[in-house]
Amino acid sequence: MDKTIKGLKPLSDDLKIDGSNYRILIVHTRWNSTVVDPLVKGAKETLINEYNVKEENVCIYGIPGAYELPYTAHHLIEAAKRADKPFNAVICIGVLIKGSTAHFEYICEAVTQGIMRVNIDTDTPVIFGVLTCLNEEQALLRAGIGENSHNHAIDWAGTAIEMAKVRSIKEF
Amino acid sequence: MDKTIKGLKPLSDDLKIDGSNYRILIVHTRWNSTVVDPLVKGAKETLINEYNVKEENVCIYGIPGAYELPYTAHHLIEAAKRADKPFNAVICIGVLIKGSTAHFEYICEAVTQGIMRVNIDTDTPVIFGVLTCLNEEQALLRAGIGENSHNHAIDWAGTAIEMAKVRSIKEF
Amino acid sequence: MDKTIKGLKPLSDDLKIDGSNYRILIVHTRWNSTVVDPLVKGAKETLINEYNVKEENVCIYGIPGAYELPYTAHHLIEAAKRADKPFNAVICIGVLIKGSTAHFEYICEAVTQGIMRVNIDTDTPVIFGVLTCLNEEQALLRAGIGENSHNHAIDWAGTAIEMAKVRSIKEF
Amino acid sequence: MDKTIKGLKPLSDDLKIDGSNYRILIVHTRWNSTVVDPLVKGAKETLINEYNVKEENVCIYGIPGAYELPYTAHHLIEAAKRADKPFNAVICIGVLIKGSTAHFEYICEAVTQGIMRVNIDTDTPVIFGVLTCLNEEQALLRAGIGENSHNHAIDWAGTAIEMAKVRSIKEF
Amino acid sequence: MDKTIKGLKPLSDDLKIDGSNYRILIVHTRWNSTVVDPLVKGAKETLINEYNVKEENVCIYGIPGAYELPYTAHHLIEAAKRADKPFNAVICIGVLIKGSTAHFEYICEAVTQGIMRVNIDTDTPVIFGVLTCLNEEQALLRAGIGENSHNHAIDWAGTAIEMAKVRSIKEF
Repeated sequence: MDKTIKGLKPLSDDLKIDGSNYRILIVHTRWNSTVVDPLVKGAKETLINEYNVKEENVCIYGIPGAYELPYTAHHLIEAAKRADKPFNAVICIGVLIKGSTAHFEYICEAVTQGIMRVNIDTDTPVIFGVLTCLNEEQALLRAGIGENSHNHAIDWAGTAIEMAKVRSIKEF
Repeated sequence: MDKTIKGLKPLSDDLKIDGSNYRILIVHTRWNSTVVDPLVKGAKETLINEYNVKEENVCIYGIPGAYELPYTAHHLIEAAKRADKPFNAVICIGVLIKGSTAHFEYICEAVTQGIMRVNIDTDTPVIFGVLTCLNEEQALLRAGIGENSHNHAIDWAGTAIEMAKVRSIKEF
Repeated sequence: MDKTIKGLKPLSDDLKIDGSNYRILIVHTRWNSTVVDPLVKGAKETLINEYNVKEENVCIYGIPGAYELPYTAHHLIEAAKRADKPFNAVICIGVLIKGSTAHFEYICEAVTQGIMRVNIDTDTPVIFGVLTCLNEEQALLRAGIGENSHNHAIDWAGTAIEMAKVRSIKEF
Repeated sequence: MDKTIKGLKPLSDDLKIDGSNYRILIVHTRWNSTVVDPLVKGAKETLINEYNVKEENVCIYGIPGAYELPYTAHHLIEAAKRADKPFNAVICIGVLIKGSTAHFEYICEAVTQGIMRVNIDTDTPVIFGVLTCLNEEQALLRAGIGENSHNHAIDWAGTAIEMAKVRSIKEF
Repeated sequence: MDKTIKGLKPLSDDLKIDGSNYRILIVHTRWNSTVVDPLVKGAKETLINEYNVKEENVCIYGIPGAYELPYTAHHLIEAAKRADKPFNAVICIGVLIKGSTAHFEYICEAVTQGIMRVNIDTDTPVIFGVLTCLNEEQALLRAGIGENSHNHAIDWAGTAIEMAKVRSIKEF
């Protein structure tokens, strides 16, 4: 399969971004911890090991569910600005799984648009690390659990770093 | 079933939050009272018994339908700020049940996004306690009525307390 | 059928709100007048007869279609504030009926969310009295026309009065 | 068929609005000109012949596609305010036809909501004259092309005039 | 087939816009480079060869995925204003392809509406060059790859130029 039709080519080594001065926030849900915990771990380890982010600059905050992600990201971004330690990027991690009611559809929509709003309102890149799955198996596969799985948070970490660089551009 | 794939692990006892200084607003619909009343009761009792919120600090306000929830939450949040007794969190409780017209779909969407907006506009966590059900049985089961049912408002109360703590963070 | 699972319990007599000092705006579409006219009449008569709103304080304004409701509500709310006679509540009445194109779906969504925005932007309750029907029969039944029908505008009038009371809360 | 169940009753002659002092903007797409051109013509002729708008006060501006309508309406409304010749109303005319990808659905939604936003943000009525059709035949029929067709822009022109009158209300 | 029912008539030669003073930003995803790269190339070459935009005034910036397009466009537009070299128009290029989860639907919606917001908030035309495809073949065909294909970015470049002209209108 040609991975460049549907997939992300890694940045070439000479374009690799050094994250050693970045401060990154990971907000994650506490719901569905089997899936969320390895995603948080994958994001954190990638930030530190691949992009040289200092461990003390990876801030992790857990909240109950996905609907709370936009508020929390927004509030903590502003709290970090007040502390003069603004985040260079934020990753929102959660998992929504289709159930028998219509809850899934409306929460997915509100969260996707809510996180988009926080991006623009705060001028801080907020990465959408929310899996919107039709069943549990889809969630596990995207958290790196089981055969042929891939931990998507590795990609989200890379996206956070690339977007932190975008945010650093003052004039263009 | 592994409850951590799809479910919320309770906070461990040492992380339990003390809500004795919190003021919490519950806005609920008067529609569908068979379902809504036990949800309101479940939220109130959990706040008081599990999180030590003082009974006089659990404010309850009933309005007709779910479409009115965002306006009411927004207006009362601002009214409480004016009274110098801001709410630490708000829980919006209601039930929408699929009918024969398209009313359900559009109200669900507008309410889910409206409550999301109130969260960010007021910098106050507003918990989404609206059941979006395809039939009455789904609603009853989620209000703790009948066998194998679970009163979801118990979870919403816990979420409100956790989010009140997020709101209290001034610098981060 | 238990009307409290899916239905609205009337306010008990001792909680009845006196609307004699309220000024209420009804904005309605001129499209589909067979359905809309009895809805407007039902809302007006309920406001006056059940809630003591003075006839001269029920302002009625007709516009062509449902897409124009949010603009008109917004504009007239602000015009009433400028005249120092702000509306205590607004009712938007219209009917959308599924046709052969996708017009119904997009207009329904934009109107439902547009009216929600006007609620919060103007701090004035704007009741969603728009029927979103899949066929004409559904519309007639909800306008009180024919057997087993119910004029929904009676409920919208009650909602407007209850929400006018919410709006009157300055501190909470 | 009772046209008042699903249809718009014309204003009675004594309520006819005189548009001779109105300045109206028509923004239209250049895509799908077979359909769009007669719509623009229908709107323009109706404004001039039925409502006495002066020909020099019907401003027409063509842009490529429907996604550009909200920006263009917004920008030109503000440009007209700066020139002290504000538009009394705007008509956005375009045609979207379902294709094989999901492009139709997302563009329809964004345009419908985008034009709604422009209405409220600019306090100028912006009429939604975008046909959202599942096939080309539906579009032709609504542009007055072929048997049993009706040029919808005639209605949009009337709506623009009625809404221009709403906009003129300063106190209410 | 009559291309004017569903298609865009080119501007006649005498209406051709000279882009030699325009500065255009292309933001593109790095995901799906097989499809995105020829789109970026098509847009760039059209701007330079057809509309006389100077090569140094075609700014190209790559980011990981489509969800990041609105933030990046917004941030770089403001950065260019700060540098006193504002963009006359922006083209956002990306490809979203339906997968097995619901990710496609929510990202498509948030990106379409996010880019719409950036248009109006920044008063800068931002062209929606995101393919929302149900399969890879649809994406290839719209990137000019294979028989009967057409590189849509050629149209987006033309749209950018036309919209840059709209943006230049100060009074109207």
